[in-house]
Amino acid sequence: MSQIYWYQDRWLPADEVRISPEDRGYYFGDGVYEVFRVYGGKLFEADAHFARLEKSAAGIRIRLPHSTEVLKRRMEELVRRNGLQEGTVYLQITRGEAPRSHLFPRDADPVAMAYCTETKRPIAAMQTGYKAITAEDVRWLHCDYKTLNLLANVLAKQEAADRGADDAVLHRGGTVTESSASNVMIVKDGSLITHPANHLILHGITRAVVLRLAARAEIPTEERSFSVHELLAADEVLLTGTTIEVMPVIEVDGRTVGTGVPGPVTRRLQQEFERVIHA
Amino acid sequence: MSQIYWYQDRWLPADEVRISPEDRGYYFGDGVYEVFRVYGGKLFEADAHFARLEKSAAGIRIRLPHSTEVLKRRMEELVRRNGLQEGTVYLQITRGEAPRSHLFPRDADPVAMAYCTETKRPIAAMQTGYKAITAEDVRWLHCDYKTLNLLANVLAKQEAADRGADDAVLHRGGTVTESSASNVMIVKDGSLITHPANHLILHGITRAVVLRLAARAEIPTEERSFSVHELLAADEVLLTGTTIEVMPVIEVDGRTVGTGVPGPVTRRLQQEFERVIHA
Repeated sequence: MSQIYWYQDRWLPADEVRISPEDRGYYFGDGVYEVFRVYGGKLFEADAHFARLEKSAAGIRIRLPHSTEVLKRRMEELVRRNGLQEGTVYLQITRGEAPRSHLFPRDADPVAMAYCTETKRPIAAMQTGYKAITAEDVRWLHCDYKTLNLLANVLAKQEAADRGADDAVLHRGGTVTESSASNVMIVKDGSLITHPANHLILHGITRAVVLRLAARAEIPTEERSFSVHELLAADEVLLTGTTIEVMPVIEVDGRTVGTGVPGPVTRRLQQEFERVIHA
Repeated sequence: MSQIYWYQDRWLPADEVRISPEDRGYYFGDGVYEVFRVYGGKLFEADAHFARLEKSAAGIRIRLPHSTEVLKRRMEELVRRNGLQEGTVYLQITRGEAPRSHLFPRDADPVAMAYCTETKRPIAAMQTGYKAITAEDVRWLHCDYKTLNLLANVLAKQEAADRGADDAVLHRGGTVTESSASNVMIVKDGSLITHPANHLILHGITRAVVLRLAARAEIPTEERSFSVHELLAADEVLLTGTTIEVMPVIEVDGRTVGTGVPGPVTRRLQQEFERVIHA
């Protein structure tokens, strides 16, 4: 089946979508994006994603080309047109097309593009767990905006792969922030601990869902920064993200986390998450 | 005259260049670039630009699609084909086209694009000088790589314009680094002072030329970091960059620099620079 893209509010086969070399997304990474999870043909936590998109766009002062209500209808239509049941929708919006200048263009309209991808849930990995490395967080200081400036994330993820790991847990001078494309949580003495949702991390939708589920399950939660030392001494480590859901980490920098298998709090959260997505 | 682009080693009219939505430059800003100055139909300081391009590409682990010798010949041909006498050449290279994944693609070839633009030297501004604001430097920690992740630079430049200024001088916690798209120098008691060429600034080609010219003119130079306080108390402030050359700054955050006109060291450096580009 040929992919149908949504591009500039038109429906196009993938190979007919061609971007202008003057798109500011191409030469400045001047845009924002969201990745939505689709379960059973439905967008998961759509409103939270659109709220974050609005926040990111406001953060870098991009005007969205449509209301989030219209965007939501388009993304639902994208899923329908592509017959997608389980996968992801990628939506990005750049500041527009204009001759290269750092200054915002006066008359350019934002460029919106979306497509979807069939992606299975990572069932096997969620049972066995990830191996992670730690790496210095060298990103800019507005990680709460979900922008196209992702080079530091790309390099961290690749470094993890090169070292035989699945992901990189980032730290800023020893304080753990998040991973290359997901949030990081640790469990210590029964408490679930994760970095506060400030400018140093992306405010993950799955992170928020998991914190809600933990509270409902009477698992104590703490939104506070923690060190690499605490990470290595944690009873459990887990990642949360749109495509990886609740992913146990069983090894960090070659050292076993806890007992080396997904721990009880992580498994409980996976069960609760499972229940939510089937609801 | 219709612009001729160099794209994927072909010569194309501007409106025939269409980028793939799967170009990693578009969704990750995963690429590097250079802007060359053209004077009298010739690339200025070409070898220094190509050396920096190689360093940037190595820094983010992109393989250049051609040797710098071939790239240089292509850029010279681009200038010739467009009949450019005075202007700039923009060259960018992304990691390639592949379905979106943070991991480097296995089989993708880099995507190279270049075009040129007629740009006059900013003669009037070089005589009267720029007004600047100061702004927090929120960029990532590899500013020495010239990459497409330029959102922080874009936002700083726009903030300057919004506040009626020409550019933003960035500082990291009170230490001046550079400006939104050029290097910053101050003159104090006859010495020319600029941030060391480390990971916190772009190693400007014009910066290097100006430091060489200063040494030759027996102006003492210091490559050391300096504070916003020193910036505001400087006898002279100047920016150096490929398109702005040696640009005096006569006002910072509404406060007059020195006597409010381009100072003697700045003017001397402008004269020396002028001599070099006419050589």
